[in-house]
Amino acid sequence: MAGNTFGTLFTVTTFGESHGPAVGCVVDGCPAGLALSGEDIRAELRRRRPGGAGRGLGASTARSEADEPEILSGIFEGKTLGTPIAIIIRNTNQRSQDYDALKDIYRPGHADWTWEAKYGLRDHRGGGRSSARETAGRVAAGAVAKVFLAGYGVEIRAWTAAIADIETPKPGEPGFDFEEIERNPLRVPCKESAERILKRIEELRAEGDSAGGILSCRVTGLPPGLGEPVFGKLDARIAEAMLSLGAVKGVEFGAGFGAALGLGSEMNDRPLPAPAGLKGSLPPDVPGLSWRSNNAGGMLGGISSGQDLEFRAAFKPVPSVSKPQQTVDRIGAVRELAVRGRHDVCIIPRAVPVAEAMTALVLADLILLHRSSRV
Amino acid sequence: MAGNTFGTLFTVTTFGESHGPAVGCVVDGCPAGLALSGEDIRAELRRRRPGGAGRGLGASTARSEADEPEILSGIFEGKTLGTPIAIIIRNTNQRSQDYDALKDIYRPGHADWTWEAKYGLRDHRGGGRSSARETAGRVAAGAVAKVFLAGYGVEIRAWTAAIADIETPKPGEPGFDFEEIERNPLRVPCKESAERILKRIEELRAEGDSAGGILSCRVTGLPPGLGEPVFGKLDARIAEAMLSLGAVKGVEFGAGFGAALGLGSEMNDRPLPAPAGLKGSLPPDVPGLSWRSNNAGGMLGGISSGQDLEFRAAFKPVPSVSKPQQTVDRIGAVRELAVRGRHDVCIIPRAVPVAEAMTALVLADLILLHRSSRV
Amino acid sequence: MAGNTFGTLFTVTTFGESHGPAVGCVVDGCPAGLALSGEDIRAELRRRRPGGAGRGLGASTARSEADEPEILSGIFEGKTLGTPIAIIIRNTNQRSQDYDALKDIYRPGHADWTWEAKYGLRDHRGGGRSSARETAGRVAAGAVAKVFLAGYGVEIRAWTAAIADIETPKPGEPGFDFEEIERNPLRVPCKESAERILKRIEELRAEGDSAGGILSCRVTGLPPGLGEPVFGKLDARIAEAMLSLGAVKGVEFGAGFGAALGLGSEMNDRPLPAPAGLKGSLPPDVPGLSWRSNNAGGMLGGISSGQDLEFRAAFKPVPSVSKPQQTVDRIGAVRELAVRGRHDVCIIPRAVPVAEAMTALVLADLILLHRSSRV
Amino acid sequence: MAGNTFGTLFTVTTFGESHGPAVGCVVDGCPAGLALSGEDIRAELRRRRPGGAGRGLGASTARSEADEPEILSGIFEGKTLGTPIAIIIRNTNQRSQDYDALKDIYRPGHADWTWEAKYGLRDHRGGGRSSARETAGRVAAGAVAKVFLAGYGVEIRAWTAAIADIETPKPGEPGFDFEEIERNPLRVPCKESAERILKRIEELRAEGDSAGGILSCRVTGLPPGLGEPVFGKLDARIAEAMLSLGAVKGVEFGAGFGAALGLGSEMNDRPLPAPAGLKGSLPPDVPGLSWRSNNAGGMLGGISSGQDLEFRAAFKPVPSVSKPQQTVDRIGAVRELAVRGRHDVCIIPRAVPVAEAMTALVLADLILLHRSSRV
Repeated sequence: MAGNTFGTLFTVTTFGESHGPAVGCVVDGCPAGLALSGEDIRAELRRRRPGGAGRGLGASTARSEADEPEILSGIFEGKTLGTPIAIIIRNTNQRSQDYDALKDIYRPGHADWTWEAKYGLRDHRGGGRSSARETAGRVAAGAVAKVFLAGYGVEIRAWTAAIADIETPKPGEPGFDFEEIERNPLRVPCKESAERILKRIEELRAEGDSAGGILSCRVTGLPPGLGEPVFGKLDARIAEAMLSLGAVKGVEFGAGFGAALGLGSEMNDRPLPAPAGLKGSLPPDVPGLSWRSNNAGGMLGGISSGQDLEFRAAFKPVPSVSKPQQTVDRIGAVRELAVRGRHDVCIIPRAVPVAEAMTALVLADLILLHRSSRV
Repeated sequence: MAGNTFGTLFTVTTFGESHGPAVGCVVDGCPAGLALSGEDIRAELRRRRPGGAGRGLGASTARSEADEPEILSGIFEGKTLGTPIAIIIRNTNQRSQDYDALKDIYRPGHADWTWEAKYGLRDHRGGGRSSARETAGRVAAGAVAKVFLAGYGVEIRAWTAAIADIETPKPGEPGFDFEEIERNPLRVPCKESAERILKRIEELRAEGDSAGGILSCRVTGLPPGLGEPVFGKLDARIAEAMLSLGAVKGVEFGAGFGAALGLGSEMNDRPLPAPAGLKGSLPPDVPGLSWRSNNAGGMLGGISSGQDLEFRAAFKPVPSVSKPQQTVDRIGAVRELAVRGRHDVCIIPRAVPVAEAMTALVLADLILLHRSSRV
Repeated sequence: MAGNTFGTLFTVTTFGESHGPAVGCVVDGCPAGLALSGEDIRAELRRRRPGGAGRGLGASTARSEADEPEILSGIFEGKTLGTPIAIIIRNTNQRSQDYDALKDIYRPGHADWTWEAKYGLRDHRGGGRSSARETAGRVAAGAVAKVFLAGYGVEIRAWTAAIADIETPKPGEPGFDFEEIERNPLRVPCKESAERILKRIEELRAEGDSAGGILSCRVTGLPPGLGEPVFGKLDARIAEAMLSLGAVKGVEFGAGFGAALGLGSEMNDRPLPAPAGLKGSLPPDVPGLSWRSNNAGGMLGGISSGQDLEFRAAFKPVPSVSKPQQTVDRIGAVRELAVRGRHDVCIIPRAVPVAEAMTALVLADLILLHRSSRV
Repeated sequence: MAGNTFGTLFTVTTFGESHGPAVGCVVDGCPAGLALSGEDIRAELRRRRPGGAGRGLGASTARSEADEPEILSGIFEGKTLGTPIAIIIRNTNQRSQDYDALKDIYRPGHADWTWEAKYGLRDHRGGGRSSARETAGRVAAGAVAKVFLAGYGVEIRAWTAAIADIETPKPGEPGFDFEEIERNPLRVPCKESAERILKRIEELRAEGDSAGGILSCRVTGLPPGLGEPVFGKLDARIAEAMLSLGAVKGVEFGAGFGAALGLGSEMNDRPLPAPAGLKGSLPPDVPGLSWRSNNAGGMLGGISSGQDLEFRAAFKPVPSVSKPQQTVDRIGAVRELAVRGRHDVCIIPRAVPVAEAMTALVLADLILLHRSSRV
């Protein structure tokens, strides 16, 4: 399968360059009969926009993208037809000439050179297809998957867990508030932390520098049994999805890297009998279970356990900084480059809906695959 | 594609349960004309065996597996035919009755219950297909991939970077020695660290407990251009491969989670002109590059940069511990379980050849996919 | 893989309903650096249009489709980027209300009922996605594949070999003229036959009836070695492609069903030494061959032989006829239906570019796959 | 996906060369909980064996193959586990030295040369992987699929419809008897026809020649809704499956090539209200239908209609004939070749279980895919 399609049954193919006519996606395999509207998709795209997360935030990109999705197929009288759902989002306000200076120079930390090493040429305008702009198609597709998952009671929530060295409270810790996440432009689950981070971001902006951080994600309502051993494990699929985002440098599930430090007797999550009647979608003769802890992060042997799916992803700092950097140009000469223009200081707040979208696409696919587990 | 096949062009399908007649693999898509012998495969399987890494090590599993591969197809007069290479490894010394006591109980930290939740039944003997025994098929397939990669000058080396809280030196640090890795049963790149860790393992064994740790991997000789954006990125594929191993809870590339803490101006690897003549497999008009640092871990935008591919994987502790643990049985009653039998205190030394095999399979596939990048 | 994607490396995903906003395709995996223009695509779409083949022909559909393709991605400065090429074609002149009468009735010979049986609902306007309109996306994608193939010297030519019981001359027979095919609206390779068929079509139109026929296709310039045994054989892939067209009821290669009647000593194509110097893309030590005959139709064991690929496809008559037919409606009552509107009497002339497009997509994919045959 | 795997959810990967150690298959994606025994597989392999169809028939191959399957994985206590089912069949009685004379010569009508043109080398013993021996793995896999389909009430029956120019009665015609098929070694559904054909085969054998013919297949009990438009249509998948058999040169569905001759008003199958209560697996609000005729062969728009699936495949004559034929050797010299050894005069009787197996694999896959059609 070529590299721009993701999934086996609930699939997405994305397309588009940052400064081409449009970006978009084709969702194929979404079951028929799902009530779906343009607003479902628009709402998620709005969360990804600079004017969304970045509203009132110095960190926002200045590019104003309307990001109005147009659904070209797959929906009739408000319901999915079982046919491919094609969605396009026009690129506007492109100012391609801004990028003329970058045509023959390789930006540090960007894919400019590796792209040329692979394909022999590239669209230099705004990073072409390696731009974060590409993720708009993912978010549109993920919006479809989210509506599908909602029918199963599955809910996905990601947030900014850390920016640079400032960590925010974890679920259950004082100050953590799920409701706060979408109230502040940083998508931090704690108002006080948000203010501290905002200050730091302004400092970095003034210095012409940028920050990375950690994104956390929690999925509730997931039925047990999802994941396709041995290669299509739930965590393998999520890891693949997260690392398919250009800025992500690591991912961990449950106790994650911390699990490497613990002892077996500590890290094993102890099963408990499930509350009476809790049987869910289990096969006959298989008892319900609950657990004392969730170090495993929601799966065992790559199959969902019915606990919350929990993972964290590490993002490197935004590579476009206005501090001057040494680099090399097309003829192999050393050049100094200060990247000008509209760049986020930190990408994580805007990556939150993208990470949710990718998670939704994985889970929708695994739910469909699971339908074939038993005769 | 069903869950037991990995790859697009250079593919592997594995099969087999721990205590069934055999485990094995079918490698499909290996190009024709590759010189390949049974010894190539046998040598890698030997590295995976308890009697290999664990030789002389209290940590070794007592199960003596001959792990003699039988090649059923795909090779003729010492060369690959371009047809599927099927390899089987008989399961011997199985003692299935050892597992009768586990038939109706769910071991903490194991996939016993999730497997039943998915499929409605399971082979309880030795964990069935969720056993680490399954990885023998991967190692056999990876051995084929390694021979293919050797023709490109690509070399993969993994080692034990940490067990429990004892870290071992990193490449370039005092005490690190690549040659030491295969000399000690722990696959630690430092003799002194090996001794400290061995002592710790013996303590844990005495306590009836187990340890996790960190595995590091470095790949040298990788040509630039490998990786299929946007979903088949090099790091996405490696992450998927690593998380397809049951005990892995996290993966990171280059600076990894540490990259989340740095500034853009620090984390960007600065390009330098390549030494004269270094052009490798680059398209015309694309200059060679080198870099001052490798925080990115060998790829940019998910495409290999020609730098070393570097990643780390976190392993949770072995869940089978002889310390008594509370759990639940098939009728939903609480039970106490002390897992007896032949279990590693730490799996990482034996996971080293498995991680290398999965890496080799990803890279062989990406090399073939890359052949279609340009007209 | 969901049902609307075709191919492994050179892939196409099509989307769109007959009376939705647009139809289109995403071509993923087309190698980078291919010179491609909008006119390449427009020219093929023009051949598929009613106003193309049907010009001046009573058989033409009255629907006037501009079929102007818009390329949304994948091309930069006149060359393919190696990224997905998304192309959309707006549906215009839709007159959806024409179809209100068909909302609750199942047309004989159409997919109305089976579509509902599968998905539980359908877009009844113009057949929705089961409309021949869907093939516009295939033709646009096939145009890209054709340009790619042209670089290899591969040329695909299909024509109308028979309509109803009127056969047209075969290549080599008196009257056959390749140049004539695109000169007449029926795409018949013989002017005289075209006139006879045209007369018959007018009779059928007057009777409110329709015709089927045979389409022939010949591919020249194909290098030997294409096809992926055992399941991805050249003929298997072409057969799959042809039967993916709704009206096709059969396909045959070379001597085809006639081969079933012959003797082995007759049907075997005898090899001859190739003319001196004819070696093409063959591996070292493999001699060139030529053949006395081509009963096999261009492949042996599913691998192209370097001879012309030759196949024929049988098309059933257009099911929409204005003669009254008995059928059943949504409540299970018997109804009489005379399908009114703009329908071709015979679909084959317009199917010619579609069959060529599907053939091109198969061959482009097989050329890329073949790049991995040898080390 | 590499060329030796077939299917999306219910998949088979076959492996093995004619004179290597073994042939076999891995079935991945068979749902868990299916009662399956070795005898289910053995019985189908027995039907494929020379000693089966060929019993008492001069046409039989002399090679005595025990064809004893060994199941290596995927079954536990008589039920499928949901894990890959690996089955191997050892090659015995190989007499590889019989083939030494063919090492450097290209047999007319065989894949010897095209295989070398693709891969640069081949296993010349018995045709290597292009041998019909390869189909043993398909039959073993198909046996699993048949057991799965039996649970749905789906039954597949193929037979010899014609050998050379002798046709046998069609279903409904005088002399046709389903029960007769497995009673005679030719798998002809009519005792009298069998005798006539047998005589003809003996004549051909005496002349050192061979015959082709037609295989018919009918599937009963198929639920409506199977098939994945637009590329995974039921007929497209069956056509791909049939043309993946080396000797097949054409396939047709229902009225097939005959449909090309008819008028729309004749060929359309008229719907009728279904008998009361016949609703089957239909979604709510979709009425049951029946039809007056089955020219379509069991599908409309590539989706099964609930009618019998009916198709025919044309087989070319066996290319190995003992009559001397001119051909070319490795150095490009003209040679005369009389193929000696154990060859069928006609392959169709033994192809019957193979065609059934491929059909079963397609249908099992489509049943699983169909599970995701609706929310």
